[in-house]
Amino acid sequence: MAKTHSSPARLEAFSDGVIAVIITIMVLELKVPLQNGLAGLATVWPTLVVYALSFTFTGIYWINHNHLLHRTDQADERILYANLFFLFWLSLIPFFTSYVLDKKLDAFSVGLYVVSMILTGFSFLVLRLAIGRHLRETGRLEREDAAAERKHWISLAMYLIAVGASVHHSNIALGIVALVMVLWITPSAQADALDHCISAHMSEADGAKDLA
Amino acid sequence: MAKTHSSPARLEAFSDGVIAVIITIMVLELKVPLQNGLAGLATVWPTLVVYALSFTFTGIYWINHNHLLHRTDQADERILYANLFFLFWLSLIPFFTSYVLDKKLDAFSVGLYVVSMILTGFSFLVLRLAIGRHLRETGRLEREDAAAERKHWISLAMYLIAVGASVHHSNIALGIVALVMVLWITPSAQADALDHCISAHMSEADGAKDLA
Amino acid sequence: MAKTHSSPARLEAFSDGVIAVIITIMVLELKVPLQNGLAGLATVWPTLVVYALSFTFTGIYWINHNHLLHRTDQADERILYANLFFLFWLSLIPFFTSYVLDKKLDAFSVGLYVVSMILTGFSFLVLRLAIGRHLRETGRLEREDAAAERKHWISLAMYLIAVGASVHHSNIALGIVALVMVLWITPSAQADALDHCISAHMSEADGAKDLA
Amino acid sequence: MAKTHSSPARLEAFSDGVIAVIITIMVLELKVPLQNGLAGLATVWPTLVVYALSFTFTGIYWINHNHLLHRTDQADERILYANLFFLFWLSLIPFFTSYVLDKKLDAFSVGLYVVSMILTGFSFLVLRLAIGRHLRETGRLEREDAAAERKHWISLAMYLIAVGASVHHSNIALGIVALVMVLWITPSAQADALDHCISAHMSEADGAKDLA
Repeated sequence: MAKTHSSPARLEAFSDGVIAVIITIMVLELKVPLQNGLAGLATVWPTLVVYALSFTFTGIYWINHNHLLHRTDQADERILYANLFFLFWLSLIPFFTSYVLDKKLDAFSVGLYVVSMILTGFSFLVLRLAIGRHLRETGRLEREDAAAERKHWISLAMYLIAVGASVHHSNIALGIVALVMVLWITPSAQADALDHCISAHMSEADGAKDLA
Repeated sequence: MAKTHSSPARLEAFSDGVIAVIITIMVLELKVPLQNGLAGLATVWPTLVVYALSFTFTGIYWINHNHLLHRTDQADERILYANLFFLFWLSLIPFFTSYVLDKKLDAFSVGLYVVSMILTGFSFLVLRLAIGRHLRETGRLEREDAAAERKHWISLAMYLIAVGASVHHSNIALGIVALVMVLWITPSAQADALDHCISAHMSEADGAKDLA
Repeated sequence: MAKTHSSPARLEAFSDGVIAVIITIMVLELKVPLQNGLAGLATVWPTLVVYALSFTFTGIYWINHNHLLHRTDQADERILYANLFFLFWLSLIPFFTSYVLDKKLDAFSVGLYVVSMILTGFSFLVLRLAIGRHLRETGRLEREDAAAERKHWISLAMYLIAVGASVHHSNIALGIVALVMVLWITPSAQADALDHCISAHMSEADGAKDLA
Repeated sequence: MAKTHSSPARLEAFSDGVIAVIITIMVLELKVPLQNGLAGLATVWPTLVVYALSFTFTGIYWINHNHLLHRTDQADERILYANLFFLFWLSLIPFFTSYVLDKKLDAFSVGLYVVSMILTGFSFLVLRLAIGRHLRETGRLEREDAAAERKHWISLAMYLIAVGASVHHSNIALGIVALVMVLWITPSAQADALDHCISAHMSEADGAKDLA
């Protein structure tokens, strides 16, 4: 079969670079407190917690991105643009993190922070659909990734509840955000393991053919 | 044939790194507004639009850069320097983005922003010509990439119109810039697809020879 | 054997990206002094020394990370998260570096700097244990890496002494930190060399089987 | 032969990342002028020239680093540390660039800028010697890289003249710096081309052996 699409290697390398910068420049938002000693550190404490939340959020996306791209060995134009769209929303996380910190976790800024997470989650779903469509079109989709899509919809619903909660209880909103992250800690579940198992066998078979 | 030139793998890795940093550090230019609530977000709005424009501009260049380097499997000195020249102009995009934001989109700053895009576009043309020349010299150019070169000249002409428009109507200038981006969303058109198809067949043939 | 886990290639690429950003953005903490000439440079001097210390600390971790990941050719979920956990603590080094600089190396900030190094060291131990467990579970651990684990415990003990010392003598605390680094300059010692030697022979054998 | 040393792939990836960040964060030093219009741009002009100088300096080092690492297919501890030492000095270039800009190119700051270039050049020589020593020890050095070493000494001498010149004529000092860059634009000359040619033939021979 003629390979008319490029391999996702550079897509992965570029995404790794962008996500690495996103996850790391957030540390520049951490400001050394004016006060000395333990009192100073205490004022920095909430900042560190939000930083840890954004770091974990971005890190879990990286792991899921890793898993998602693992499913395809080609990247067409649609996937490239869906990936850019996802990176765009992810790149705003440092901005909304510093927003929430500057506004000292007031209702509006926490709501905004959750909205930016919703948009990141939505764009990741777009990327998943683009990859699913490509696999279907090139006839290499073994099985629909229904479990992962269901997880997307549950997350988006929970985020919407978090936006509502942020009006009166920003801590509850942040708690729900943390809960959604737990959902995504394992990107796969059994379904994916099966998928990889199958594709590994297939590539073994391919390798055998190449050497035959 | 003795390979006297290095593979473009490290060139790609370095370019990916530089473009990843360029596209991401622009987020540091976004400043949290002093006002609280929706009023504050409203003042940030134009900033976000320009950020999205610069992000898209850089992202589309990455995709086109990806496609362009896909055409060669070697990188000579001339390509390395043409690539550096391109990255230099691209690296100024964050600066001119913050310029246009600081000056609140006045005529001069928008004109400057468009000029920096022209220079980036021009340097990308230089890179394309360097790669074309290398392919011609090593006898691996299947077909001139005339369609892409034509697109370059059209873009540069449109950018010049945008510079003129920026004097009186900065919104129209930014609109033209957005229009040029649309031109580049598909880096290839059919011609390129054909090209890849041919090279894929050739590398298959090479692979067959290697194993024979 | 079916490969149900992804290769550590992207894990390495992402870690390289994150560590590269961490090690480089610290330079943004260096402030040009107000005074001109040699007097100005003299005021910057301690800053440069702490920068060099943090740079070396991060650099040595990169080399040890490199060695550690070299032991495995697969990365399971546990390794991915242990790696994120390690990168999180490492990413705080630039913050605590600027903390110690802003506070002009007072006892509390130096103590904090050392504590962040302890937590980085501890998270690196967690990563080592995760990799060891994975190798044991998949039956590919030739030999326990007892020497490296011993080095971890010695380092953590020395760091604790440094925290104590920081109360009265911040220079001694920084000296101990420098001493721990010396311990880690060679990530391996003979044991590791042996390990690589064995695995090289094994992969040669594998290669032979593949071609047979 | 048992491979007891790791391949330089991750060394290259890490160096690419660090150099990519170094070359790109310098743009954050560029400050948007307070004045509007052409008058504002005119005040930024010298800044842009120094930025271009530092960008070119770093870019040429990347190309030479690329070439240098191309000579070896293994990286021992000594090479890893020599590389870190080189990256340390290179990472200070953005700091000394902003130093020279803040001090408006006064004699002292230009001298300092040149001294940091000398130290970068010196550390690159150390890296070259580390790689040469490794190649000699493992019996894979076809020929001493005497031409490149000579170029190092010439550059260091020219830099020393530039430091002297900076006392009275900072423009002449910067001119000499630019002159040294020209020397390094072609990392190789004929000698290196020959070297690659030989190693390409050797790896072809190796490949033949592997398949035999």
